[in-house]
Amino acid sequence: MSANATRRGHVLAELERRGCAALVVTHLPSIRYLTGFVGSNATVVVSPDETVLLTDSRYAVAAKEAVDADTQVLITQLDATPKLIETLMGLTPADSVVAVEAAHVSLARAEAIATRLVAAGRVMRGETGIVEAVRAVKDPDERRLLREAARINDAALARVLDAGLVGRTERDVAWSIVEALRAEGAEGASFEAIVAAGPNGARPHATPSDAVIGDDTLVVIDMGAVHGGYCSDMTRTIPVGTPPDELLHIYDVCLQAQRAALAAVRPGIACTALDAVARDIIRDAGYGDQFGHGLGHGVGLEIHEGPRLSAAGTGELTSGMAITIEPGIYLEGLGGVRIEDLVLVTDDGAEVLSHAPIARHQTGGETHADH
Amino acid sequence: MSANATRRGHVLAELERRGCAALVVTHLPSIRYLTGFVGSNATVVVSPDETVLLTDSRYAVAAKEAVDADTQVLITQLDATPKLIETLMGLTPADSVVAVEAAHVSLARAEAIATRLVAAGRVMRGETGIVEAVRAVKDPDERRLLREAARINDAALARVLDAGLVGRTERDVAWSIVEALRAEGAEGASFEAIVAAGPNGARPHATPSDAVIGDDTLVVIDMGAVHGGYCSDMTRTIPVGTPPDELLHIYDVCLQAQRAALAAVRPGIACTALDAVARDIIRDAGYGDQFGHGLGHGVGLEIHEGPRLSAAGTGELTSGMAITIEPGIYLEGLGGVRIEDLVLVTDDGAEVLSHAPIARHQTGGETHADH
Repeated sequence: MSANATRRGHVLAELERRGCAALVVTHLPSIRYLTGFVGSNATVVVSPDETVLLTDSRYAVAAKEAVDADTQVLITQLDATPKLIETLMGLTPADSVVAVEAAHVSLARAEAIATRLVAAGRVMRGETGIVEAVRAVKDPDERRLLREAARINDAALARVLDAGLVGRTERDVAWSIVEALRAEGAEGASFEAIVAAGPNGARPHATPSDAVIGDDTLVVIDMGAVHGGYCSDMTRTIPVGTPPDELLHIYDVCLQAQRAALAAVRPGIACTALDAVARDIIRDAGYGDQFGHGLGHGVGLEIHEGPRLSAAGTGELTSGMAITIEPGIYLEGLGGVRIEDLVLVTDDGAEVLSHAPIARHQTGGETHADH
Repeated sequence: MSANATRRGHVLAELERRGCAALVVTHLPSIRYLTGFVGSNATVVVSPDETVLLTDSRYAVAAKEAVDADTQVLITQLDATPKLIETLMGLTPADSVVAVEAAHVSLARAEAIATRLVAAGRVMRGETGIVEAVRAVKDPDERRLLREAARINDAALARVLDAGLVGRTERDVAWSIVEALRAEGAEGASFEAIVAAGPNGARPHATPSDAVIGDDTLVVIDMGAVHGGYCSDMTRTIPVGTPPDELLHIYDVCLQAQRAALAAVRPGIACTALDAVARDIIRDAGYGDQFGHGLGHGVGLEIHEGPRLSAAGTGELTSGMAITIEPGIYLEGLGGVRIEDLVLVTDDGAEVLSHAPIARHQTGGETHADH
């Protein structure tokens, strides 16, 4: 059985638990996950009898090549809804419940599907988290791709740092990250890199500017590679020159919080509890309000996917999940720090996939790198 | 009044026509269009009293800098729905109708908003095309940005072609497009470039492969630049060596169809009628079934936006619209051709923004470029 078929098997089991005869998948990363198809327009029906992929003529050749033998490809108009209903009529019994992905399908499309399904004697129901729960736990192929995506990211950052930061613009460094990712074999960047020096570092999602990176500050670099469709994600905060004492202090606090959270990663820990490990350290140091985002997130075919590690997260970690551990502290007008590793949850802890050195500021007269 | 405020004025006028007290905007490109905010998480309320942008703490600094004086920024949790309802309570009268963007808001979010709105004595209604209709007609600032995005694209293609195609892999050429766009000053590529030689050219949305580009075929190159957030989009099909006669023939047919459609662009022509100008020529030449996609699409902050030029399109062209004219003919197993220009609809015709030469194959013993 292909990896895609195994994944669909997990989806079918969950559909049965929820009393649904079929699932209409509209989220493109989930379509890739379940069928192998990559493109900008597709709809998939997963049912016990058959998996059907509907797409338009632009992808006629690629779709047939991408899918496994158990998946049928139907070429339709750009709006696949009429053909989708016809397909569902053939695959589901009368009066059955057809699930749609409520977190992804648009209201307009859901209404169009619901109206036609009712006319066809079926019921549409919005469901959430079905494919996402399967995707959150990575199979061996996915773990291999994630390790390689992280390795490429490590090597690309090393190239960029070898060229130095001071005197270059943030934008120029961001471009050199694109070049370095390519040179190291990435298919692309998993998101637009963040290069944020000095006060810009106080914006967790800063856009690289034309500001020249000066001395005596912190530079936040957040970057990721795509390999085989899978994303890596890593942040390093690089001290240049002698940053102000308060920035050095928040660097230490953030690093301590990050290390404590890494050490707490294991199957069974609640996502909120893991977030609290880092958050408590930062709050006790007096910077609770300056750590406004969650501790981390799942990573895979999407740069942000489940689980969500935050005070508002739900559920617990499972062996095979790929997550980021990335606390940050942001001081408006002065600067910021974020330290992020990509890790796999193992049977008894964590496998850290990010191996780029953690730059340490000068302590007692010497500069050293750890990790 | 800022350009953003003028745009919101058009939205407010349409809301009044539709009997809605406010619009909840969730589509990020439309949020950028109406407020100037760029980021991965935001919700905007447009109402006669006030425009409110809700985002999370990662964007606290950037959001306040981006918006104009008439727009209020509220920092909320990642899930902005509770704060959104509170905001709508303050901005809309009891029993009023609040519109959401049905084509963009997810079913799950719409249900969460609808439930809370009903509890608050309002009614939610899914509406489509409100911001899209305003966005389809470009104001002078947008037209300037589009012209420059097209100019960058022209110059980048020239760089790539100067280096030659034969003997390089499709993937290598695709990367050189990224580099050339950057060298010419683009913020980035507006989509992943298509470089498809020989049989790969029969896939309208081919992914660049590791195949080496050989001689005696056609190479389809579809690429775009981003400038000031605005996208360009252009396709050239490059003959290398002496392609098979049938490919040269479909090249001529496609070019004739593209030129005829360009000549037919003017305010008032129906989108279906414009599509038919090109489609009739291709069908009469016997390749109707090999032109499976629409003639073109609107371009702006998104690479695909309104209007849609196809047999299934609706409405007519208006002065100020930015559209692509891109017929194609695809022969499975042999190759394909697509020729695409980005054009602005003017008061009396079209302003073609793409100026890269149209490569012509050898006719009567000479190779020449036209346009």
